[in-house]
Amino acid sequence: MKKLTGPLLIAGSPEKVPDLLYATGFSAVDPVVYLQDRGRRWLVVPLLEAGRARRQAKKGVEILIPAELVRRRSAQRRRDQWILALLRRARARRVTVPGYFPVDLVRRLERRGIRVRVAPGSVFPEREVKDAAELRRLRLAQRAAIRAMRRAVGLLRRARARADGLLELEGRVLTSERVRHEIDTTLLEHDCIATETIAAGGTQGADPHERGRGPLRAGEPIVIDIFPRRRADGYWGDLTRTVVRGQASPAVRKMHEAVRRAQRAALRGIRAGAAVAPIHRAAQRALEAAGFATAGRGAEAEGFIHNTGHGVGLEIHEGPIVGDAPGRLRAGHVITVEPGLYYRRHGGVRIEDTIVVTAKGSRPLARCPDYFEL
Amino acid sequence: MKKLTGPLLIAGSPEKVPDLLYATGFSAVDPVVYLQDRGRRWLVVPLLEAGRARRQAKKGVEILIPAELVRRRSAQRRRDQWILALLRRARARRVTVPGYFPVDLVRRLERRGIRVRVAPGSVFPEREVKDAAELRRLRLAQRAAIRAMRRAVGLLRRARARADGLLELEGRVLTSERVRHEIDTTLLEHDCIATETIAAGGTQGADPHERGRGPLRAGEPIVIDIFPRRRADGYWGDLTRTVVRGQASPAVRKMHEAVRRAQRAALRGIRAGAAVAPIHRAAQRALEAAGFATAGRGAEAEGFIHNTGHGVGLEIHEGPIVGDAPGRLRAGHVITVEPGLYYRRHGGVRIEDTIVVTAKGSRPLARCPDYFEL
Repeated sequence: MKKLTGPLLIAGSPEKVPDLLYATGFSAVDPVVYLQDRGRRWLVVPLLEAGRARRQAKKGVEILIPAELVRRRSAQRRRDQWILALLRRARARRVTVPGYFPVDLVRRLERRGIRVRVAPGSVFPEREVKDAAELRRLRLAQRAAIRAMRRAVGLLRRARARADGLLELEGRVLTSERVRHEIDTTLLEHDCIATETIAAGGTQGADPHERGRGPLRAGEPIVIDIFPRRRADGYWGDLTRTVVRGQASPAVRKMHEAVRRAQRAALRGIRAGAAVAPIHRAAQRALEAAGFATAGRGAEAEGFIHNTGHGVGLEIHEGPIVGDAPGRLRAGHVITVEPGLYYRRHGGVRIEDTIVVTAKGSRPLARCPDYFEL
Repeated sequence: MKKLTGPLLIAGSPEKVPDLLYATGFSAVDPVVYLQDRGRRWLVVPLLEAGRARRQAKKGVEILIPAELVRRRSAQRRRDQWILALLRRARARRVTVPGYFPVDLVRRLERRGIRVRVAPGSVFPEREVKDAAELRRLRLAQRAAIRAMRRAVGLLRRARARADGLLELEGRVLTSERVRHEIDTTLLEHDCIATETIAAGGTQGADPHERGRGPLRAGEPIVIDIFPRRRADGYWGDLTRTVVRGQASPAVRKMHEAVRRAQRAALRGIRAGAAVAPIHRAAQRALEAAGFATAGRGAEAEGFIHNTGHGVGLEIHEGPIVGDAPGRLRAGHVITVEPGLYYRRHGGVRIEDTIVVTAKGSRPLARCPDYFEL
């Protein structure tokens, strides 16, 4: 993962390409082009974004509009023309692009004699290691998630079980939608956006990313997964608790204990320099020791059916992946630790905290209580 | 824009690649791979998404997980391996990919002898023309935007001007942030997400996409641009009004009248079969006739500094673009009509409605009042 040398070119919408936001600090819906070479950095934006880009982009990023680069009007709409003009400015005939770079632009550049090298890994490997300012932003996102979790838990605590087992609050059946609304409005108060908040009860939770719908019941596990993004800077938080209003069944209680133990086992292995695979295996083994071996083939598999964790930053899922894969942790990595168990019959149980890797271990990005039976 | 023949391959996160959502009906954060060939359609998703994908994907889309395609565990993480296995199933050695397809995957496939053709335009040109179900979803998104606008206008109407000109509501200075919060919570009530709602007062509005911050003032133009996305299906709405609490200055009133006239001029030209460039020119000419010629060079330009409109669907900005470009409208296109004027000294004025193109003209997706002086 050594740093790249030579000109680096990125194209796309900063809203969808975190490397652009990372490099420039500027966010927009429409496509832009970024080039850096020997200490200089250029960002080409549509005319209507020029003023905003000049105020918001990081120091040292030179903002250009297509008309400053390309004379012919019809060519001013074409990003390949922006790039060719930029490369002429930089006197570059070779560029490196990230792996996700659009193939059509590569082919157009190659037709004009530009040599395009595809970076083998991330073009900003340093993005995985968070500096103090990034940790501050991530912590604010995580705190927003924790406050939203507290409100969701409060809602469930105030709910009462009807004779038929459905939860009721203020004379209405309590639904996944209502819990999600409580979470998402809390996040908005903290200027965070959550696009896919999960509040999935009972067997719905058997699919890890099922958002949940309809009435919630007493005694069933409810997976609440909150991952807000800060509008101000684009950093994410990530937090999951699995809760039960009233008493959990013996099976679900056993699952929950096993998952908690698996999370502790994974956390024990985390420190700068540690390989990720043994951390994932430690979580798997803790679950197996409690009688929850992953079973079933292919799409019918049940048990622990995902990785133990992933990096969090300007993407909700980014490197490093904590799974059955190569790679080592570094101080300043921010990762989730989120073992889970999923059974068609019982539903899902997942516990997820986001932590900062340190020289000697880890510390939580922010602390959230261990909610379970409410 | 004829339909493609032969195998079509798309890779990416459905959340970021609308073609994937369009083709499969399935949304997810993590990367997937899609292949269609001679009536068959395959979608490869990570194991943890398999259950959800099987329930949510469109009929006829076959859901696969990596372990069903690739034997070696370490290779199951690699999307190029998923694709090679899929292509073997389809007995295909040539594929077409969209222009935005990742270059690293293309190069890996080429190294394995696959011929990769890049589609010259959209791989689903029919996406621009909305069917009845899509129009229903777009209308719901637009109605959510209209309700949010009404609430924002209500807030401004209830506000009072202090002696220093700042607006005050319930004993507190009214800010862009407060107006945006009112809008975004209203949208959430309609299960819509708005990531970049604009409420920009005074000179802040001179940048079309400035979100706005801090206190709002009586007598200044406030650009309110609301573009919600429906969480249920991913369709967008788009709506802008420029309002003034109290009386607008003569300059701003003149700008507003000119923009309204420009919008009408553009609307008059809209019908199935019409070329887009004359529609954009009609808006420009209406503004010029009112004394608002675009002036200044490059990034210093002021006046009408963007296109007249854009398509709206699974993307907030999609084809067709209504600007100085080739292309014709078709019945079923859903486009914004949004002329605007931007001056450093006065701020911005933009009026935007989203309409459906019909054989003989257009109809609004949903009707929003002409708010201006409140």
